[in-house]
Amino acid sequence: MIVNMSRNATQEQIDHVVERIKECGYQAHVIRGAERTVIGAVGSNGRRAELEALQAAPGVEELVPISQPFKLVSRQLRPEPSVVNVGGVPIGGEHWIVMAGPCSVESREQLLATARAVRDAGGSILRGGAYKPRTSPYDFQGLGVEALELLREAREETGLPIVTEVMSTEDVDLVSEYTDMLQVGARNMQNFPLLRRLSRAEKPILLKRSPSATVKEWLLAAEYLLSGGNPNVVLCERGIKTFESELRNTFDLAAIALAKELSHLPVVADPSAIAAGADGIMIEVHPCPERALSDGPQSLDLKAFAQLMAELDRPERKRARTTVKV
Amino acid sequence: MIVNMSRNATQEQIDHVVERIKECGYQAHVIRGAERTVIGAVGSNGRRAELEALQAAPGVEELVPISQPFKLVSRQLRPEPSVVNVGGVPIGGEHWIVMAGPCSVESREQLLATARAVRDAGGSILRGGAYKPRTSPYDFQGLGVEALELLREAREETGLPIVTEVMSTEDVDLVSEYTDMLQVGARNMQNFPLLRRLSRAEKPILLKRSPSATVKEWLLAAEYLLSGGNPNVVLCERGIKTFESELRNTFDLAAIALAKELSHLPVVADPSAIAAGADGIMIEVHPCPERALSDGPQSLDLKAFAQLMAELDRPERKRARTTVKV
Amino acid sequence: MIVNMSRNATQEQIDHVVERIKECGYQAHVIRGAERTVIGAVGSNGRRAELEALQAAPGVEELVPISQPFKLVSRQLRPEPSVVNVGGVPIGGEHWIVMAGPCSVESREQLLATARAVRDAGGSILRGGAYKPRTSPYDFQGLGVEALELLREAREETGLPIVTEVMSTEDVDLVSEYTDMLQVGARNMQNFPLLRRLSRAEKPILLKRSPSATVKEWLLAAEYLLSGGNPNVVLCERGIKTFESELRNTFDLAAIALAKELSHLPVVADPSAIAAGADGIMIEVHPCPERALSDGPQSLDLKAFAQLMAELDRPERKRARTTVKV
Amino acid sequence: MIVNMSRNATQEQIDHVVERIKECGYQAHVIRGAERTVIGAVGSNGRRAELEALQAAPGVEELVPISQPFKLVSRQLRPEPSVVNVGGVPIGGEHWIVMAGPCSVESREQLLATARAVRDAGGSILRGGAYKPRTSPYDFQGLGVEALELLREAREETGLPIVTEVMSTEDVDLVSEYTDMLQVGARNMQNFPLLRRLSRAEKPILLKRSPSATVKEWLLAAEYLLSGGNPNVVLCERGIKTFESELRNTFDLAAIALAKELSHLPVVADPSAIAAGADGIMIEVHPCPERALSDGPQSLDLKAFAQLMAELDRPERKRARTTVKV
Repeated sequence: MIVNMSRNATQEQIDHVVERIKECGYQAHVIRGAERTVIGAVGSNGRRAELEALQAAPGVEELVPISQPFKLVSRQLRPEPSVVNVGGVPIGGEHWIVMAGPCSVESREQLLATARAVRDAGGSILRGGAYKPRTSPYDFQGLGVEALELLREAREETGLPIVTEVMSTEDVDLVSEYTDMLQVGARNMQNFPLLRRLSRAEKPILLKRSPSATVKEWLLAAEYLLSGGNPNVVLCERGIKTFESELRNTFDLAAIALAKELSHLPVVADPSAIAAGADGIMIEVHPCPERALSDGPQSLDLKAFAQLMAELDRPERKRARTTVKV
Repeated sequence: MIVNMSRNATQEQIDHVVERIKECGYQAHVIRGAERTVIGAVGSNGRRAELEALQAAPGVEELVPISQPFKLVSRQLRPEPSVVNVGGVPIGGEHWIVMAGPCSVESREQLLATARAVRDAGGSILRGGAYKPRTSPYDFQGLGVEALELLREAREETGLPIVTEVMSTEDVDLVSEYTDMLQVGARNMQNFPLLRRLSRAEKPILLKRSPSATVKEWLLAAEYLLSGGNPNVVLCERGIKTFESELRNTFDLAAIALAKELSHLPVVADPSAIAAGADGIMIEVHPCPERALSDGPQSLDLKAFAQLMAELDRPERKRARTTVKV
Repeated sequence: MIVNMSRNATQEQIDHVVERIKECGYQAHVIRGAERTVIGAVGSNGRRAELEALQAAPGVEELVPISQPFKLVSRQLRPEPSVVNVGGVPIGGEHWIVMAGPCSVESREQLLATARAVRDAGGSILRGGAYKPRTSPYDFQGLGVEALELLREAREETGLPIVTEVMSTEDVDLVSEYTDMLQVGARNMQNFPLLRRLSRAEKPILLKRSPSATVKEWLLAAEYLLSGGNPNVVLCERGIKTFESELRNTFDLAAIALAKELSHLPVVADPSAIAAGADGIMIEVHPCPERALSDGPQSLDLKAFAQLMAELDRPERKRARTTVKV
Repeated sequence: MIVNMSRNATQEQIDHVVERIKECGYQAHVIRGAERTVIGAVGSNGRRAELEALQAAPGVEELVPISQPFKLVSRQLRPEPSVVNVGGVPIGGEHWIVMAGPCSVESREQLLATARAVRDAGGSILRGGAYKPRTSPYDFQGLGVEALELLREAREETGLPIVTEVMSTEDVDLVSEYTDMLQVGARNMQNFPLLRRLSRAEKPILLKRSPSATVKEWLLAAEYLLSGGNPNVVLCERGIKTFESELRNTFDLAAIALAKELSHLPVVADPSAIAAGADGIMIEVHPCPERALSDGPQSLDLKAFAQLMAELDRPERKRARTTVKV
């Protein structure tokens, strides 16, 4: 249920409504807009009839039910786009960004060379895997803490914020210490204990869409994060599984448009997606793709990345650039 | 098998090779490039060993096997992109075009109003269904010959060439009389008797991808047209069936890039696809989408179409415009 | 709309209702059950309000709207299962049958050896392709009329009725002369001109499900046949396209159960499907699968077929056997 | 690599080979068959050339490479089917079993009534969810430890072993204390930290197939469990996501046959699957499905369950029954 407060509602009236929502057994989420404040009442175990009596409370203009199964992520509750801050780089709204870096962190040389190229070409955020989810137990599983140390060093040198995947509830505290954003991989999109743990993390979350998730299931996974207390969520589309086996995944362009219509959260995606209104792109870059320990064939080399960045320079939306510190 | 003739091969030498290919039980397709002539030898019942002896024929530089199951549509046989002429409008190569019009022709007023709007906004070709493939026998099945008459009238008034779907071998001659291009609908992509009949038609073919076809199956369907004698084929991507039921089809952006990599044929697609290198787009336009007898929800109204066209104006590739005759 | 006549309605009353249905602009389909007669009124262009006035006509018990988009194929209109007679072999109801034979008819020896093995093992109907829909134009396309002649000879020798695919409206008359049942291949499931032509054929139809059709789309394709005048339709499930590329198609067991719940038409399918309530199975059999010109890998050899038939012998439902004429 | 020892290889020779495998940087897995011992050498970082020198070691008959990406789960390494013991109930080989119980444990009454019905109808193992993975954070998430206590009580009363899902690495020890088998849900099939933790658990694992996993990805997930040290794995097929949205999942019958061909692990599945060679079935049973807190529509009531069990009684394979202790 959305409680629309009237324009001149006082803080006291707002506090009273929040209080009552909690007494009825719901969570209260206060969203302050430019013109008015709205309060979301969410939960499944509250006393609905009592909640509806708020209609008559002072300062309340109207009560509107939220028709979608997701509540806090919906456009209905928050019509303006959210802007998520990642180590000083804003994502969403009028900003669009480029996250780039290697699939896996493999060595100091590989990471620093890539990081400098990303910075020089105007990239906004450095990505790189420390813990890798691999289909086979015999494949390279990532360098772990050693990779986190290297990512920290790359940030110090280039000033780029860092995003890396976290696969386990037990690693959340450690990875949060080192990076600016925590990525949930596609295979973990419905790992609910991980989502619940991340909803209490202090860092923003990059939530990849599972290759078999509908847009609604993806938004409900984001709802786990927001309802648990973490409003800083960025969605990432990376393609779905279809019968076409020639290509690894089928990139779902329309899903970006649909996600942005249904939700206020920013969406990042692959380069071809900017036309669909994505707020940013995420690219794998490697100094020598054919020697990469994971996902080489889908990585750009440093020169191709610089060319792509030049082409992407578009005047109509601001691209967030990092002010390099050193 | 591809027979690459040497640069200074004489016409007599070319004729000799063609003759020998036929004697070995294959079809011979001569492709004259700017620099040299290549000859494709295709078929499955020929005498391969005899064919390979052509290696030693005068004027032959080398023989190259065609690795893909499709032959005449492959980039291997013809590295330069094909340009297909539709009633004076070139599609492919450096030209990109816009086909627009209603899903179904419903009335004189509806069609002419749309045709004028398409022409005024700079559209290249007018589309409109006369025979409609409908999932239910109880749905509107198209106006048939009456619609063909109206399409002819719209061409006369606006100068726009016409494309319309043909569903049956028995209608090919009739529809060819009225229109400039014959469309094979997605459900007929593997209607092989229809493809064989159209391979002998005098008009170019717009071949839509079936929602369950791989890119290879799509190109093999085009191969039926080329191997039967019709080289004027344009591919049209319109989305594939996936588990995501919120959206009718999942538009397969990467398939356009893959089709253009594997084949020299032009590809048209929906507006968001220009980023993937499509040679054109195909849009449903209707003066009043909510009153359309078919596919209303996915049609643009006339004003939205004009806006889209303005946005699409890009300097780097030539958009083919029709010189209006009257 | 379904018009349920009362138990003691007279023929005159029934005729009157039929007359009125036609006058209102609908088709009338009379279904005589053991206890009562029901009349289906179908079509999309009738005058609904006038039709509803039939409520008050003599002999009418009640009017029930048909909720599904398919009408004549629905269980709602005809609760008892249909039985389709194929050259003396009943399919549906309490009968279940085995159709077997080669993918393609390749030679007299191949066909007759297979036909005898099918008869000896207790098969009910002989299948064999004369016209083959092939993904590539360079693959074996079937022997055509020569194959039809051989199928006729095999029927004369074994007494087995024949089913074969018809791909083109132009071949319907010819193929009908030779065979007992006409098959619509999976790729032609939504070839509407072909369906309309077959709705006027004198032979029963075997309608294969397209690998990308929902059960509803499949039943609507059958509706084309029934609404055009051919009530003798048997559905055939053969698997759908999914992301699992290890197997050619994913056999959709639940679709058989769903089709039988929604429709009164018989369903045949592959051997593993009898558990799901299929009315029969359709198997490719070849004397020497590794030398088959099409679909060898999925064919059984003659011995394996005889073993399967022995295993399938189940007491609880009658298996229709052909009395061999000599 | 598989090292086939000769029939009369001594224990000393076997120990020597194991030692050498480890020295070369691989894991060694000894499998003692009725006739001979084979030793699997698995891992990706070993010194292959040195390993191949084992060809000449005393007692070694031959070295055979494992062609599939999964090694320990493959039929190639262990041709005979594995039998997994769950609280005294064998699964696999000549035994087939029925697991039944409610989707979620909801109350003492609900669970005990169901457990008694499962025991009385001849069910082998009691299932019931304590921790529920739910698409929405607002849906019932399971009773947690309270449910585990009730499951223990149900086992004490009925003698049925217990299987329940574990969603988080942190819950593995706790859930292991209460139950006889740990289930990995479909959404966690590629939760690799969970798989690694469960590879060190003392209880057997029921590994559900993800609705978007190929059979190979499923077997590689099982490989995580075996390569980490837990050989007691049972696979569970529950359907895949396809374009057919009428049904929640498309049950993939052929996947069971394929999994059993590629792997020696037992497979359980839904009731219709016994025809495909499944080693058991898993059914949701609830005293009152329409009041269930989760998955009510797909549950059987107690009477329907008893009927199904009666029908499933087949003489040709032994159904494992629990000898009720009290």
